[in-house]
Order: sequence, then C-alpha cells, then structure tokens
Amino acid sequence: MITSTSNSHIKEIKHLRERKFRNESGLGYVEGVRLVYEALRRGTVVKEIILAPEIIKSEVIVEIIKLANERQLPITEVSKNVFEDLSTKDGPKGIAAIVRQKWGTLEMLNTSTNFWVALFEVADPGNLGTILRTVDGAGGEGVILIGNCTDPYDPTAIRASMGAIFAKHIVKCSENEFVKTVSSSGKYLVGASDKGSLDYHEIEYKNDTILLMGSERQGLPIILQKECKEMVSIPMSGSCDSLNLAVATSIIMYEISRSVKMRH
Amino acid sequence: MITSTSNSHIKEIKHLRERKFRNESGLGYVEGVRLVYEALRRGTVVKEIILAPEIIKSEVIVEIIKLANERQLPITEVSKNVFEDLSTKDGPKGIAAIVRQKWGTLEMLNTSTNFWVALFEVADPGNLGTILRTVDGAGGEGVILIGNCTDPYDPTAIRASMGAIFAKHIVKCSENEFVKTVSSSGKYLVGASDKGSLDYHEIEYKNDTILLMGSERQGLPIILQKECKEMVSIPMSGSCDSLNLAVATSIIMYEISRSVKMRH
Repeated sequence: MITSTSNSHIKEIKHLRERKFRNESGLGYVEGVRLVYEALRRGTVVKEIILAPEIIKSEVIVEIIKLANERQLPITEVSKNVFEDLSTKDGPKGIAAIVRQKWGTLEMLNTSTNFWVALFEVADPGNLGTILRTVDGAGGEGVILIGNCTDPYDPTAIRASMGAIFAKHIVKCSENEFVKTVSSSGKYLVGASDKGSLDYHEIEYKNDTILLMGSERQGLPIILQKECKEMVSIPMSGSCDSLNLAVATSIIMYEISRSVKMRH
Repeated sequence: MITSTSNSHIKEIKHLRERKFRNESGLGYVEGVRLVYEALRRGTVVKEIILAPEIIKSEVIVEIIKLANERQLPITEVSKNVFEDLSTKDGPKGIAAIVRQKWGTLEMLNTSTNFWVALFEVADPGNLGTILRTVDGAGGEGVILIGNCTDPYDPTAIRASMGAIFAKHIVKCSENEFVKTVSSSGKYLVGASDKGSLDYHEIEYKNDTILLMGSERQGLPIILQKECKEMVSIPMSGSCDSLNLAVATSIIMYEISRSVKMRH
C-alpha cells in the first residue's frame, strides 16, 4: 500500500489533472464507484485501478474488483490520505481508475444511423459532460468537437457525463475538416443560434441530422452557419437572451429524437 | 479606496460566501458586469456597489455607475488585490454588488397566469441557477423550493441564472405547505420521475401547470408523487438512467411552454 503523497507514481497520477499531461499520455483519471464501474462495463481500456480500502463503503466495489481481476488489471492500494490527495471531488469514495482515452474519427459519420451533436469551441467541461449524458439519453451517436474545445477527459466533464463518455463516440477535428466531411457526406446539418430563422420545433429532423451548436460566449461563427441546411432557434420569453449551452443542446436533441421516432 | 483585505467591511462582504451569513443578513453578493447590471435593471434592492477601478475594462460600467448615482447607492472603491480577495470567480471584472434577497410567497400561485417549477431538495446551486435561467426563457412564473434546497443566493446559482434570479419569483416552503397550497389551489401538478407512466410529450399542459421535480440523488418522494395529477418521464435510450436535473427540467418546461402556446 502506498502511504506517501510524494510517491512518484502518485505524482504521475496527479499530473492527469492537467490537460497537457492527459494529451501527452493519452490517459484520463476517473473517480468514483459508478464511473469506474461504467468504464469497466463499457469496454474502455482501464490501465489501473486505485483503491483506498480505508475509505471504501459501497458494496459495488466487490463487483468492480471481480471485473478487474478477470481482466488482470493492476490494482494499486493507497492509504486514505493519499487518496484524498489524488481526489478531485468532495467526499471521495476510495476508488479511481486510469483509463486510456478513446477517440473516434469523422469516418464514423458515414456508417452511423443516429444523430450526432457537433460543438464549436465548447469551453465548459461541465457543459460538455452534460451534453454527452443527454446524447446517451436521447439516443445520439456521439459528439464532434470542432476547433479549440474543452477536454472531455477533464475530471469535471467525465463526472458530468455520468459515464456516457465511455459509451458514446467522441471525435475531434478542425473547422475545415468538419466542413469538408459534412458537405461530402450529405448529412442534414442543423445549426442553432438565437437568430435562427426557424423555431427548433418546426423542423422534421431525420436520423442523419448533425446538430451544430456554437460556443458559450460567441455562438456559431458565420462560416459554419453557412454550411447549415437550416438554422433554428429556441423561442425566448424573458429578459435573458439565451439558455445554458447544455440545456439548449439537450432541448433540441430531444426534439430530434422524438421527430425521428415519429417518422418510423 | 479600501486597500487592505483585513478591512472589517471587506471581511463582512466575504462572509456572504457562507449561507449562514446570507440567511442571517438577508443579503447576497453579486459579481460581474452583466449580473450587477441585471440586478439594477430588474429592480432588485441593491445596497452597495463595489468597484475596483484598476480592473474594470467594460464600457457598460459607465451605464452602471449612472444607474447607481441616480439611485444614490453607496459605491465602495477597492484596490485590485482587495477585489481579487473578494472575488468568487476566475478573471474578476472589478465590479460587484450587495443585494437584498427577494422572496415570494405561495399566495402568488393564486394570481399567476404562467407555469411554475417546484423543486424538491435540489442540491446543486448550478442546477438551480440554470433552471431559473430556463424558467425565464420558457416564460415561467418562478420556482418553488420545497424542503432542504440549496440557496439561490449562492454565488454559483446567481451566476448560472445569468440574472434570471432577479426577474423570477422564488418561494421557499416545506413539503406540507406545498401540498396544502397546491391541493387547495386546484393547480395542475405534474411530477417527473424515471418511472413516470406517461411520456412527458403526451400531455396537454395548461398554463396553470406546476412542474414538480425531485432531487438529483433521490428523485421525488412517494408522498409528493401521490399529489401529482400526472407523473411523466423522459424516454431514455442509452446506458445512463437519468438526465442532469437542469436538463430534464428544461426539456419538460419547453414542452409545457409550447403546449400552452398551441392552445392559445
């Protein structure tokens, strides 16, 4: 059992809080009973399990250790103080895992049969995670991250996704790559903006829809709006001029999901 | 100009980070150009403006100082380091305000003509703020906080509301008070749960709807479910069994808003 917070392996793991080290290593740090269980269950490559026996209370842990042993995963035992030092959340539950990041490719658009969500420069990891969670709930295929987006393997994003990060495709690309792929694929690209000419509810969405959302601060740049077959907006009644990005994306996603189901 | 972080007035303001002191004083701390402007514009009682001239860049500030002077509000000037010490956000913009909390009463249900959202023991201030933002966008009347909820005057909630906290009614009550008022008012109480028997989309909502949502962890207790005229659920496709609370509430709210408009 590792009892020192200055242990070199512990220091390495702590580096995964920083995006730079996550990018370089291609790894992510996942914490909490449910998330570790989802990672194992969803076939994400788990490199290592970290356990703090002094903290663990949940009974799910038995199931997790069973899965880990079946796959011969290394289990690192650490003391309570070491786990608390590693932890990125309040009230740590004593279990974490190091996972290999999994990225999809734009080619996946050609073979998929459900809608996608494309996010231009999404900045808030909580929003990204929440959107992944709704993509899973609404039956979408995955998320395309265009340009300079936040990292889905940010601990806040992983947590907000409630494990959907392990179940859904995530693709990273530039604006140009996105535009090129979408125009050649013939996908039904629908953009959202507060100035969109159609109510999001007036469209018959198809299952080859890509819903394109702009960043929290700037919305969608004109160059991307021009690629859209339709631009929709969500009607706003009050004094605020916009909704939270994850909320707006989720509202339209559920309308896509409903519209597609009605056509079947 | 106050230049010391140990100044007693500055210490008092910092206490407003803690719920206990907010409750005792009935005050809240609001930070950022947009939020302070919304508070002033929406008629919230502003007790004091705090400015750090070294930090301020936005031109909206001129408008804010004009409004503050018209109302003869005290303006406290502080140095950059003092403001950074006060600040609850990254990249502080050099303006904040102390506001008086404003609470509505359950009697408001009787005179209102738009839908309400009732939240049972909502725990996350970001969720509460985001829900207030959507209530404003979707044209709802306000939010009823049942039981042991998070504080809407938590800085995270205020920020997530994007100012909707100053525009919408917020009512606090116990489970009993809520049940009593709703059953005597004849309002159309619709609860949401993952086991709700109706798809949220199958209902014709009326403008006297109260949408009742459970807590992030526990959902709605049976005793409250029993009071509902209908229990609805949002269809889930994936491996996650639920959506983020603010997302789920917002999806149903927009359906209520659309349904009510269609009937007019």
